[in-house]
Amino acid sequence: MNGNIPNILVYHTSEADKYADFLRERGVASVQTASTPEEAMERLPGTDCIMAWRFPTELLSRPEAAAVRWIQSIGAGIEDLMSDPAIPRHIAITRIVDQFGGLIAEYVFAYLLLIGKELPRMMKAQSERRWSPFRVDALQGKVIGVAGLGSIGSEIVRKARAFDMTVYGLSFSGARSSLVDRHFDGAQWLAFVKELDYLVLTLPLTEQTRHAVDRRILHAMKPEASLVNVGRGPLVSEPDLIEAMTEGRLRAAVLDVFDREPLAPDHSFWGLPNVYVTPHLSGQSKFDAVGQFFMDNLRLFAAGEPLRGIVNRERGY
Amino acid sequence: MNGNIPNILVYHTSEADKYADFLRERGVASVQTASTPEEAMERLPGTDCIMAWRFPTELLSRPEAAAVRWIQSIGAGIEDLMSDPAIPRHIAITRIVDQFGGLIAEYVFAYLLLIGKELPRMMKAQSERRWSPFRVDALQGKVIGVAGLGSIGSEIVRKARAFDMTVYGLSFSGARSSLVDRHFDGAQWLAFVKELDYLVLTLPLTEQTRHAVDRRILHAMKPEASLVNVGRGPLVSEPDLIEAMTEGRLRAAVLDVFDREPLAPDHSFWGLPNVYVTPHLSGQSKFDAVGQFFMDNLRLFAAGEPLRGIVNRERGY
Repeated sequence: MNGNIPNILVYHTSEADKYADFLRERGVASVQTASTPEEAMERLPGTDCIMAWRFPTELLSRPEAAAVRWIQSIGAGIEDLMSDPAIPRHIAITRIVDQFGGLIAEYVFAYLLLIGKELPRMMKAQSERRWSPFRVDALQGKVIGVAGLGSIGSEIVRKARAFDMTVYGLSFSGARSSLVDRHFDGAQWLAFVKELDYLVLTLPLTEQTRHAVDRRILHAMKPEASLVNVGRGPLVSEPDLIEAMTEGRLRAAVLDVFDREPLAPDHSFWGLPNVYVTPHLSGQSKFDAVGQFFMDNLRLFAAGEPLRGIVNRERGY
Repeated sequence: MNGNIPNILVYHTSEADKYADFLRERGVASVQTASTPEEAMERLPGTDCIMAWRFPTELLSRPEAAAVRWIQSIGAGIEDLMSDPAIPRHIAITRIVDQFGGLIAEYVFAYLLLIGKELPRMMKAQSERRWSPFRVDALQGKVIGVAGLGSIGSEIVRKARAFDMTVYGLSFSGARSSLVDRHFDGAQWLAFVKELDYLVLTLPLTEQTRHAVDRRILHAMKPEASLVNVGRGPLVSEPDLIEAMTEGRLRAAVLDVFDREPLAPDHSFWGLPNVYVTPHLSGQSKFDAVGQFFMDNLRLFAAGEPLRGIVNRERGY
């Protein structure tokens, strides 16, 4: 470290220079960039901290990375970092927190309303120049279940209140159970889902949550219920969901995340009835906000104070 | 009137019997129905009060209607009744109030989110099995202008708060101006619209509001702004809006109400780019809630107490 100014490496396959410029414009001089593992390897010696999207974690155990003390992920999910237990324990891992709630909740309600108000039916009638009124259903009075009550889940709950919905929540810690009308824990999935009109997944991916929504859960849901996954693809068993949607067991499934991204062109989800596929865009980080989050953490790091968004490796998020 | 039990005529072209059965099941015996002006004429003698959708108002000045003291409209808008100044002054006119806010606000936010989050772009990419992420815009931080701050406008304001939007309002009375961040009156349309991202019309139709949104106002709006009309068709000049949308002056127009309904199959609106046409379904009355509203008013009427939703004929709503 050069006095109190840490040496920074920004790693991103396409936007490394953009983030580096953001930092330099704010007076941070000691910034290098890398967009490939080879470039990263070359620039690691002397690097104190890394700001990265999908960093090649195997490099962190090498002697070139001896000075690294902190890696800031550009995103809320950090399972790429969690999946590598070889990352030395003295390297702190932080993720972006409290920035995605509003955007993801907007995405969720955009689709809840699209489905609940039957906008595709309205658009089809218009394309046929057909005036055919029908009784439109309401969100008010319906039951939404939010699995995961972190900053994203909490924001969904807040908007659900404005729509006068009944709100159920499932979380492992139970810390925010007072936000919801009924709270369930990780052992109560069946009881949680059976009365829901909308099930929204915002959980982190851990060994406890992988494939939490499988055939058993899908079969327990009401046929008029819809599923929205804005968490991580593997929260849901893809084969079980494909089977359920093919059999018409749910009203709709809205999927922004998948086992493998990008979703392969021949994947069944693209063409299944009542399945809405979007390309992992519900909670994009806003460039400026991410830059500012890192700047704030950098100040804490230089001062030797606790960082924001620190990841608990035992918990997995 | 037969003791304290008024004689009731239910007038509706298709649902008169359904409403009559609702009343009879609740112990109201003296109910007749009519679905044509001829039937209404026949059953008017002795009728004390009328529950009606689009009643042929010319009958109310005839001797057969001598006993009529009250007409309850099945809806929030009553310009059909207002447009006939010959309705005798001793007949009280009531409309349904406080029932449409939630439903109409859901419709408004369904389309604000459809447009703001670019759902049609997402659906098109899916239909082509194309994984193409893009930066999705947000409602948070945008400016919504709500013209009309009655029970419907207030509910839209409430939901806009949950989406962290900046809220402007325009109303004639100014009674609820404290709900919004900036309030404008009927002489300030130009100042009201110029900063808006979304303009939502919920005003009643009066001489002051007819064609309030004309070429001058449409030209003053930002090109990225969208218009939503859930009030009455003639709040907007249809030729001026057709011109504006043809010229691409606005991002989108969402129209649930029109000068003439049903909208003619050859009307330009059906096929204009970025115009969403729906068949006056945003604020349908819920059958049970309307029936209950009338039952409650009937009790007040029989007791000689002031009715709910009474229309001020000078004000026009």
